[in-house]
Amino acid sequence: MSLSFEDLPIRDDLRGMIPYGAPQAPLPVALNVNENTHPVPDEVAGDILDAIARALRDINRYPDREFTALRESFAGYLGEGLQREQIWAANGSNEVLQHILQAFGGPGRTAFGFAPTYSMYPLLTRATGAAWVAGTREPDHSLSAESAAAQVAEADPDVIFLCAPNNPTGTPLPLEVVTAVYEASRGIVIVDEAYQEFAPRDSPSAVTLLPGRERLVVSRTMSKAFAFAGARVGYLAADPAFIDALRLVRLPYHLSALTQAAATAALAHASTMLRMVDDIVGQRDRISATLEALGYRPYESWSNFVLFGGVEDPSETWRRLYSRGVLIRDVGIPHHLRVTAGTEAETTAFLDALASIDSEA
Amino acid sequence: MSLSFEDLPIRDDLRGMIPYGAPQAPLPVALNVNENTHPVPDEVAGDILDAIARALRDINRYPDREFTALRESFAGYLGEGLQREQIWAANGSNEVLQHILQAFGGPGRTAFGFAPTYSMYPLLTRATGAAWVAGTREPDHSLSAESAAAQVAEADPDVIFLCAPNNPTGTPLPLEVVTAVYEASRGIVIVDEAYQEFAPRDSPSAVTLLPGRERLVVSRTMSKAFAFAGARVGYLAADPAFIDALRLVRLPYHLSALTQAAATAALAHASTMLRMVDDIVGQRDRISATLEALGYRPYESWSNFVLFGGVEDPSETWRRLYSRGVLIRDVGIPHHLRVTAGTEAETTAFLDALASIDSEA
Repeated sequence: MSLSFEDLPIRDDLRGMIPYGAPQAPLPVALNVNENTHPVPDEVAGDILDAIARALRDINRYPDREFTALRESFAGYLGEGLQREQIWAANGSNEVLQHILQAFGGPGRTAFGFAPTYSMYPLLTRATGAAWVAGTREPDHSLSAESAAAQVAEADPDVIFLCAPNNPTGTPLPLEVVTAVYEASRGIVIVDEAYQEFAPRDSPSAVTLLPGRERLVVSRTMSKAFAFAGARVGYLAADPAFIDALRLVRLPYHLSALTQAAATAALAHASTMLRMVDDIVGQRDRISATLEALGYRPYESWSNFVLFGGVEDPSETWRRLYSRGVLIRDVGIPHHLRVTAGTEAETTAFLDALASIDSEA
Repeated sequence: MSLSFEDLPIRDDLRGMIPYGAPQAPLPVALNVNENTHPVPDEVAGDILDAIARALRDINRYPDREFTALRESFAGYLGEGLQREQIWAANGSNEVLQHILQAFGGPGRTAFGFAPTYSMYPLLTRATGAAWVAGTREPDHSLSAESAAAQVAEADPDVIFLCAPNNPTGTPLPLEVVTAVYEASRGIVIVDEAYQEFAPRDSPSAVTLLPGRERLVVSRTMSKAFAFAGARVGYLAADPAFIDALRLVRLPYHLSALTQAAATAALAHASTMLRMVDDIVGQRDRISATLEALGYRPYESWSNFVLFGGVEDPSETWRRLYSRGVLIRDVGIPHHLRVTAGTEAETTAFLDALASIDSEA
């Protein structure tokens, strides 16, 4: 008879859990996990491969534990006068957030976010033994500075997550909310800008707020705008003292030489990589407009995806799209679904499939 | 004035800590961190690069969360009828061990190892909130089945580390110690075989003990025998139910597509990669013989390094070797130093430098 993990001396708080993860299904049109569906351009891939070939020459040695060249590149990419001493990186932004929670969360502490928000925040929080406290948003998922500050002051958390723009809703977060939350708190304030590159070009990043705010940290990822989800590269900017705290909890040599080489090479082509962003933003706005025309209620999105309400039976719509070769995401909000903006062809496939379902009904 | 991480609301147990890590110094002869100092052979590097080039084509997509092809390759490499359902992998064996401790350690639990042993065990244990308990070894660092079982029965730990061969001492661990510890315990028994490939060819791996022992796990790394320290690939074999437990604590998509491609390609060349192992074993035995002739006391080693006693002032000897361009490791055992077996030329450089220091004294 086959054993279950519950037959092993596993931690009590893990009993009955099931692993996190969106279904990985090989459908022709996969718009479920907010990937950038545009491949890395050939000329960039060539440079990445050259950098990896060089890294392979001494892959027998441990990598640079301080990933100095990569941090230099991130500082240059983010601008705002950032120095490499203010940069940290890890295997995906989830690991970046895990490092923060390992240093500033843990047993007896609490982390806070405004629901609905990125579903990994509570999981990462509880994995360090800290408690998760969820605040609330307006019905349109927006958040005023006043309400946010009042909720944070009331909860008095050790770590605060501000997802900007918010996942899974796409909602923009004005910088005044960040400053108000910072003033109202004593804990670490994380602005998760995973999707920042899809916001309007003239909307400022929370990176501009870093000077003089040593508890503030801005996290990013290369998964979305840089089309690098497979390479697992997240990063953050903060005070150098904050970076020192993360050095205490990271595993030694946590970033491989291959990852460091690939990411550094990709960042050297930032402008080419970001050219895809404009296409994606165009498709996102087309999705919103078409959904509205079809009678759904799309929410304002500054990201590469659109959350939409007005779905009578989300699991049924999801299943019908699936049977038409289109994979989107049921994020668990009643009467809502979320779709990633893909290439023009993928976006058309989704919109056509949805329209054909509607005409059946 | 510059801020310190202690000015931030960091967890209390991290105050006063300093980051783990051997000095990273660019010396001509670096024999301090038990790397394989032989580069990956060109023909293997070529295949790895081809595999990475293929992975780059859809690097915009999240990687296979189950790293199926890689697990299949590890199962084939380890043999003994293992199936891929029994394999796990992560970014270095430290992350593999962290996953185990996240699932089976944590607050209120204890982990146990026989000191001196791998210095990361207590750090990884405490990082999950568990307590570390150290057992003892014979003066020659060996461990009898009787003593090991008695100590484990007394401590009654939740997780037990058996480093085989042991780091930093190189000491072999007979399989009868593993079975005795398993019988005497109720917790998870980890046999860390990071250096197993450097043991005599006919010495069996603890992998042979897995059938019927669902609390037993054998961890490995590609860093040493496979000359892959820069790629960060650790793995383990255990019961499929044990693997299910690790799925609950790993971050989603923790292994990048580049890592999966590189490791799978390298494993296809296992016999070529392992040819370097014989050279290294030859240099290790030459180090032991020469150290003995120089009046030091090398310990029996089944690994790619040699711990030796009889060093009057380790920090002074370390410093003098350093000034001669040779970097070895002071592992903190009084009157001892540890050196990695390098290429023939590196090994000669170390032995000549040590002899020249002795002749000065």
